[in-house]
Amino acid sequence: MARARLRILLGEATAIGPGKADLLEAVARTGSISGAARAMNMSYRRAWLLVDTMNRSFRAPLIETAAGGAGGGGAQVTAFGHEVLQRYREMETRANAAVTDELAAFRTLLADEQDDG
Amino acid sequence: MARARLRILLGEATAIGPGKADLLEAVARTGSISGAARAMNMSYRRAWLLVDTMNRSFRAPLIETAAGGAGGGGAQVTAFGHEVLQRYREMETRANAAVTDELAAFRTLLADEQDDG
Repeated sequence: MARARLRILLGEATAIGPGKADLLEAVARTGSISGAARAMNMSYRRAWLLVDTMNRSFRAPLIETAAGGAGGGGAQVTAFGHEVLQRYREMETRANAAVTDELAAFRTLLADEQDDG
Repeated sequence: MARARLRILLGEATAIGPGKADLLEAVARTGSISGAARAMNMSYRRAWLLVDTMNRSFRAPLIETAAGGAGGGGAQVTAFGHEVLQRYREMETRANAAVTDELAAFRTLLADEQDDG
């Protein structure tokens, strides 16, 4: 399935995009970066780096970690993080709605989308 | 500057996105994959892999290479490739237009975008 996904760029770095938004939701759901990493099938190190990039890209942290040893403590999405996530999902929805017709036409150009069925 | 960028996903792979669209344009401009790679400051190998992914993702090749030895031959964007590129840019424009207001508000949440000037 062809999908349009939105990516918000800040200079060269991606402040937030599909992967980081999913990671935010996974942290909110699991209560830790390590749990979110497992849920998303990525290394703890990669998840931590993504969280660090997000936290640095915005005015305030999106995720706060509890003191609790190396990778052992919990993590939670801040109120600010929830606001960013909500605004991002809203933009994603609007962007997708704006290209629905074009995307349907575009899909017929893709190799795996035979329209003979 | 925060920008919204569109990414068209085909399953897990990205059939086309900002980087591949820019690469297509660079091939059209320079007439070769190696020239496009230089223009985009990426390795020939990476550019070639991106072209290969694009060509496999769509029904027909977006870029055709001339026989001419390892990396030596020219390359050109096919008529089909130009159509894909045009449709992609159109979707990108529409998606951006759809989130203009939200993006302006979102920008104030980013660290590097102080609105005190």
